[in-house]
Amino acid sequence: MRWTQALDAAFQPQVVAIIGASAEAVPGKQRFGSGNSFLGNYRELGFSGRLYAINPRAQGPVAGVPAFRSIGEVPEPVDLAVAAVPAPVLPGVLEECAAARVKAVHIYTAGFEETGFEEGRLLAARCREIIRRTGLCVIGPNGMGPYCPKGHIGPFDRLPSEPGPVAFISQSGGNLNWFSHHAAEMGVRFSKAVSFGNGWVLHGDDFLEYLAEDQDTRIICMYLEGIRDGRRLLELARRIVVHKPILLVKGGLTASGARAVASHTASLGGEAQVWDAFYKQTGVVRADSLEELADLAMTFLYVQPPRGLRAVLMGIGGGNSVLAADALAREGITLPALAPETTAELATFVPLAGSMVRNPLDIGAVFRGDLTLLDRTLGLVGRDPNVDIILAAPHLDLNRSSPEETDRLVARLSDYARAAPHGKPLALTFHSFSNDPEEMAARQRLMVQLPQRGVAAFRDLARAGRALARLHQYHRFLDGAAPERASA
Amino acid sequence: MRWTQALDAAFQPQVVAIIGASAEAVPGKQRFGSGNSFLGNYRELGFSGRLYAINPRAQGPVAGVPAFRSIGEVPEPVDLAVAAVPAPVLPGVLEECAAARVKAVHIYTAGFEETGFEEGRLLAARCREIIRRTGLCVIGPNGMGPYCPKGHIGPFDRLPSEPGPVAFISQSGGNLNWFSHHAAEMGVRFSKAVSFGNGWVLHGDDFLEYLAEDQDTRIICMYLEGIRDGRRLLELARRIVVHKPILLVKGGLTASGARAVASHTASLGGEAQVWDAFYKQTGVVRADSLEELADLAMTFLYVQPPRGLRAVLMGIGGGNSVLAADALAREGITLPALAPETTAELATFVPLAGSMVRNPLDIGAVFRGDLTLLDRTLGLVGRDPNVDIILAAPHLDLNRSSPEETDRLVARLSDYARAAPHGKPLALTFHSFSNDPEEMAARQRLMVQLPQRGVAAFRDLARAGRALARLHQYHRFLDGAAPERASA
Repeated sequence: MRWTQALDAAFQPQVVAIIGASAEAVPGKQRFGSGNSFLGNYRELGFSGRLYAINPRAQGPVAGVPAFRSIGEVPEPVDLAVAAVPAPVLPGVLEECAAARVKAVHIYTAGFEETGFEEGRLLAARCREIIRRTGLCVIGPNGMGPYCPKGHIGPFDRLPSEPGPVAFISQSGGNLNWFSHHAAEMGVRFSKAVSFGNGWVLHGDDFLEYLAEDQDTRIICMYLEGIRDGRRLLELARRIVVHKPILLVKGGLTASGARAVASHTASLGGEAQVWDAFYKQTGVVRADSLEELADLAMTFLYVQPPRGLRAVLMGIGGGNSVLAADALAREGITLPALAPETTAELATFVPLAGSMVRNPLDIGAVFRGDLTLLDRTLGLVGRDPNVDIILAAPHLDLNRSSPEETDRLVARLSDYARAAPHGKPLALTFHSFSNDPEEMAARQRLMVQLPQRGVAAFRDLARAGRALARLHQYHRFLDGAAPERASA
Repeated sequence: MRWTQALDAAFQPQVVAIIGASAEAVPGKQRFGSGNSFLGNYRELGFSGRLYAINPRAQGPVAGVPAFRSIGEVPEPVDLAVAAVPAPVLPGVLEECAAARVKAVHIYTAGFEETGFEEGRLLAARCREIIRRTGLCVIGPNGMGPYCPKGHIGPFDRLPSEPGPVAFISQSGGNLNWFSHHAAEMGVRFSKAVSFGNGWVLHGDDFLEYLAEDQDTRIICMYLEGIRDGRRLLELARRIVVHKPILLVKGGLTASGARAVASHTASLGGEAQVWDAFYKQTGVVRADSLEELADLAMTFLYVQPPRGLRAVLMGIGGGNSVLAADALAREGITLPALAPETTAELATFVPLAGSMVRNPLDIGAVFRGDLTLLDRTLGLVGRDPNVDIILAAPHLDLNRSSPEETDRLVARLSDYARAAPHGKPLALTFHSFSNDPEEMAARQRLMVQLPQRGVAAFRDLARAGRALARLHQYHRFLDGAAPERASA
């Protein structure tokens, strides 16, 4: 594609100029997202190329890096310029970037079409004319720009520095920030991510095309508000989705959301029905929130595709099981009766009273002690022809199991999930009757540790069910098969 | 009603006999829910009446209370007997309870119809015959029985001991356990709660009738799996709902859920359409999960009914705002354009760039500093004729605000919520880009503190929106008005 080289330079730059970094900025007091914060955040991610600060009032180094009054004075070719300047001076800055042959410009500056005011629209028109005339490669404006752990750059503090196989194309900076942190806690690490804001030059479709060819990217996540060229996006998605899953949150599908989109990135939200058709035609996987997107990224990374949507639910208590069964059914996951031979065999080693040997299976003893019963039960449901998915939902109440017991249990379930000896995915959720802060913290630690060991752990069963159903749907799409008949 | 006196005795007993408490039980090793655990849990809740242990092998006190070989030997009338015995001996125990004129029997014992085995069904038939013949007041079997902070009894450890105005009728013991803890964290405290399991004698409708007259109960929450007499439940609900809100989770509305219901409490799940009609005809408020039920209880306790479903959303960032607007719209809450005079006035004190002065309002500065801007903004949206509800969703990132700043902000929002100077409800959610454990703990503390101060704090905006929409719907039902027309 046209922008490959420029984007390579933007994501893994050797020379970066921050336009708008200021000597007067007081450390710790700098405004979020100011030029200086980019300096600090790039350093935090271990950026080891050359950094320059550009400020017309510069009189010596800024925040420890060499400073110049204009980008034209930088003594070497600039890969990435970050424009963090007041909107009215942006036209001049863009002219200078073009003259200096900067490979890519990330415009952090906001205050254009998205304000809804005439002043912003006129300024935008002037800038876009300059960009058209000079052919500048621009990310933004009103976006947070590139994040690339391998390139050691990113626009926020505390971003994960370890790279991974997931890309994220986000129109919104806040959503890039949220997702980078929260998905990372679910074992999702990033190849390349970007917030492109109003998308004057590079839009969602361009980044999609670029990442399709990126060797470091196996899964592409997207958050889009507007679409510049629907036909192109559809064709690209169709072509790419068979090689790399594309997981998409489309914002602005409701009237309220569309109004918010206009105010945020001056985009058009679009019709819900059009997007229903888009998902169906392309095989792009739908998510309706960032939480769901994170669930999906974890699932596509760590869960093996189920052959169907019939699950066995092991572990949570009676009334909880009922509500879980209802919640799962709403996501398309059924809990069928187990095969008669499974139930009969279970009844030989399960005490009747207070247990449920049908599906859901509520057998407290299975998750305790030396776990022999767990192994036997997993063997039985693993071989049961009525079961495609194993959902394990143990209770983790401090007063009922010791930390050692919990670790042993979780290790055993993780081993099964990774080995999948019966070719069936196992997904985990954890339950607790109490809301004890210590227990919550312990559960949270487990939730973070498990994906790091390659095991999917979900916040609740409905979310697990939804993600598994989407994973199944994607693989059915790839098979070119008819959609699974809804089973009773 | 027929059972009033018996239930008064069951919820606030002076004399309790635990049938099945055992001298051999090793402290700390006792099986969850064994007779001994009831002894321990009643004591933990400060029970100061007389406790007796009944065990045919008793030879002296059990766990520090006087023990007898049969309930007939207890030297005073028993208000509540808890039967925690093996299923096969239950018939004899029931005969003895009847002979001793025990006022109410809670049968904890399980292993009857719900097992699906002939043996359990036959045993159940024998017990039911005894109960019919003797007229015993029975709660259960296969249930966890009564929880009443004022009566100082409850079947689980660590139950909140402080009483409150919310009742909970739960067929399931696990759901009673979960809800008592989790709803308590959201400022919900209990008058009386009960888990009645298979409901041989007293069923959901009976407890509903009883609690309708209970002076300590203002709101009635229910979790039902089966219905014994649909007509009676409908008529009771219709009559009661105009005095006390009834919030109901009906389990088993899907095929999978109904199967789980049969296996759990041997009930019939029922048709989803029938329940849709039930909610519509009675004004009973629908919840689909216990989390939702807790949200609703908090909302009905602390949020003043909105006059409509048009909200202003203040605080969360661009892309997040878009997804929040979509999520709210799915719950029936719209984010309309603010009145022109509001927007014009906002623009006089809000910096244009990076802010959104339409709705959602994304004005970072409003939640910082001395909060003058917050007061001005609340004044403006409070008076805006397009706004019925104020949703405040500040970001609480540690690196952006100090604990003192956060406290000041939360105090100011709480004052507004409680005073409601413009007659509009304010609901809170908290957001954070990072998932830092320290930040999560801080947020969790706030979430717990706020309802205790009478302010509703929600886990996320979709849940807030759903609860507010249900609150509005309930009050529209009371008004007898036509359902609100969906606004664009």
